[in-house]
Amino acid sequence: MKFFCNPKTLIYSISIVQKAVSSKSTLPILKGIYLEAYDQNLRLVTTDMELGIDHIMDANIIEEGSVVVDARLFSEIIRKLPDSEVEISLKDNNELLIKCDSIEFNILSYNPSEFPELPKIKEEQVYKIPQDLFKNMIRQTVFATAEDGTRPILTGVLVETGEGMLNMVALDGYRVALRKSDIESQLSDKVVIPGKTLNEINRIMDGGEDEKVQISLTDNHALFTVNNTKLVSRLLEGEFINYNQIIPKEFKSRIKIETKQLLDSIERASLLGKEGRNNLVKFTITDEKMIINSNSELGNVHEEIEIELEGDDLQIAFNSRYFIEALRVVDDDVIYLEFTTNLSPGIIKPISNDNTIHLILPVRLASY
Amino acid sequence: MKFFCNPKTLIYSISIVQKAVSSKSTLPILKGIYLEAYDQNLRLVTTDMELGIDHIMDANIIEEGSVVVDARLFSEIIRKLPDSEVEISLKDNNELLIKCDSIEFNILSYNPSEFPELPKIKEEQVYKIPQDLFKNMIRQTVFATAEDGTRPILTGVLVETGEGMLNMVALDGYRVALRKSDIESQLSDKVVIPGKTLNEINRIMDGGEDEKVQISLTDNHALFTVNNTKLVSRLLEGEFINYNQIIPKEFKSRIKIETKQLLDSIERASLLGKEGRNNLVKFTITDEKMIINSNSELGNVHEEIEIELEGDDLQIAFNSRYFIEALRVVDDDVIYLEFTTNLSPGIIKPISNDNTIHLILPVRLASY
Repeated sequence: MKFFCNPKTLIYSISIVQKAVSSKSTLPILKGIYLEAYDQNLRLVTTDMELGIDHIMDANIIEEGSVVVDARLFSEIIRKLPDSEVEISLKDNNELLIKCDSIEFNILSYNPSEFPELPKIKEEQVYKIPQDLFKNMIRQTVFATAEDGTRPILTGVLVETGEGMLNMVALDGYRVALRKSDIESQLSDKVVIPGKTLNEINRIMDGGEDEKVQISLTDNHALFTVNNTKLVSRLLEGEFINYNQIIPKEFKSRIKIETKQLLDSIERASLLGKEGRNNLVKFTITDEKMIINSNSELGNVHEEIEIELEGDDLQIAFNSRYFIEALRVVDDDVIYLEFTTNLSPGIIKPISNDNTIHLILPVRLASY
Repeated sequence: MKFFCNPKTLIYSISIVQKAVSSKSTLPILKGIYLEAYDQNLRLVTTDMELGIDHIMDANIIEEGSVVVDARLFSEIIRKLPDSEVEISLKDNNELLIKCDSIEFNILSYNPSEFPELPKIKEEQVYKIPQDLFKNMIRQTVFATAEDGTRPILTGVLVETGEGMLNMVALDGYRVALRKSDIESQLSDKVVIPGKTLNEINRIMDGGEDEKVQISLTDNHALFTVNNTKLVSRLLEGEFINYNQIIPKEFKSRIKIETKQLLDSIERASLLGKEGRNNLVKFTITDEKMIINSNSELGNVHEEIEIELEGDDLQIAFNSRYFIEALRVVDDDVIYLEFTTNLSPGIIKPISNDNTIHLILPVRLASY
């Protein structure tokens, strides 16, 4: 194997695939990048057995071949090279020679035949979604996945498709984040994609409105294609909670409020909470104003926000973190908050449509 | 106590004093900021008993008085306020009321009479040094102080003054960083200032060429004055090593080399080292070129740099970290490296003057 390439292009390609390199695996070869030189292409592949990334870049191939090198060392070396053409070749003793100006690195390599192949995905059920829409849908849902693995299915996001629509839902037992969209498709699917996979595909998508990500689903895998990069992920197995049953269809109190003002206010209230505890914020809703307050052994905070109220007065308390995380991903300047009683979930939604719904369970207080 | 002030000014002032807040102290009041309202000034004071910072800002004082509040909570609250005037007052129950628009925080306070006073420094031995010069002197020495406390005196920088001169020296047993300068002064002193103090004063100095820092030295303390900020630090006790004896006066090999080229090259060589081990880089110096190489179980690297050699050929090895840290603070584009034998220290110095000297001990190798 021997090829020449531009170090900046190679650094970019390494940064694309590096996130699927296994950091903890006991299998040393999974800490590597598989490099394959063919035609006028260099292919880079990494996998941690859950997620695999396959990226192709231009290179001047002198001799075809393949090799696996330690991802961290290879990345650090290429990043520290001067900005002139790099020559990379596999020597007879299986050392990889990296040459640039008067610099010569020789590093150990692994046998490429031992590198696991990525699953082959039949591209039958194919969706094409504008990248900016899909990025937004990920941002508005993935934060609400469960962090720990006690219920693994909740560490993923439900992706549900039907005629002309694609919905994404995440929930962790304390809240639900639901994002709906209209897409051009006649297909129907229901899969749960790991949150980590969605964060990676989000990182890789750098296109604007006009560029699309292509998604293919099978029973066990999802394949995402963005330009020269393919990302293959296992799906999570199990039954996802029927979220439609949880989301209230009616309300007794609805307030109209400025998103930023509410977010700032709850962030201030959360300052008095102590780490590791339920960080309570209380809302007292009456005509035209909402009082937000919070107290702890450190002190208390009290502030008022102008609102428009439709329906009943209400006192209700929440864990401030869940409200803050939901409000941070809301794109609308003005929102509705909908409540039924102070023991039923609160809903955050845009005033103009039903595309985004955040549901948050309240905290029951002995007194208000 | 009651005053009004601009939240942005207050945030700036808190950021100045916050670094002397004790993070580990068992004395809770040392986690606080002492606030004193008098005339039209607000004074903010913090101390961890080694280092104290005293800063004065403008405020609209309605009622004089003082209070101590938790530094972290106070800072977080002020940072989250909207950009309108803040009212701060001490209530009869000793809670501090922070008011801004419709927002009201009430937080616990400490008794200001329990806050330790900063040492009173007689400003007799006073030096005035341009801020940019002093910043540079700190940057070029403080990195070479010892990190651990087995020899506490080496965690500081020796500041030595004499007629018209000020020298700063740091050393840790493996290297010496010496920076000389000419200043206008007839005084003579020799003190060791903790590295932490110098890092803090460096952070606070934001003036250019024309602004000066004022330094007053006593037997036990140093006082630094920068505009409205005073920083008082304990001095380190003990005898500093006589660094003049260590620095070789002659050389057998001297090479002229580009700083950046050498730094880049040693940084590349260091990539093959493993954390926690001596990270060796070998220099092979002959007429017109220097070969830099390094090897480990991961592989090896070899590169050549053009040089001008005066004197003997030489092979010598160093811990790459010490060379990298010294070269990163060198301001000159071209430097001399001076060597005697491969068992004696190497010297890095500018080609135009003797103001900066970095000495690094070599590593003895069984074979070259």
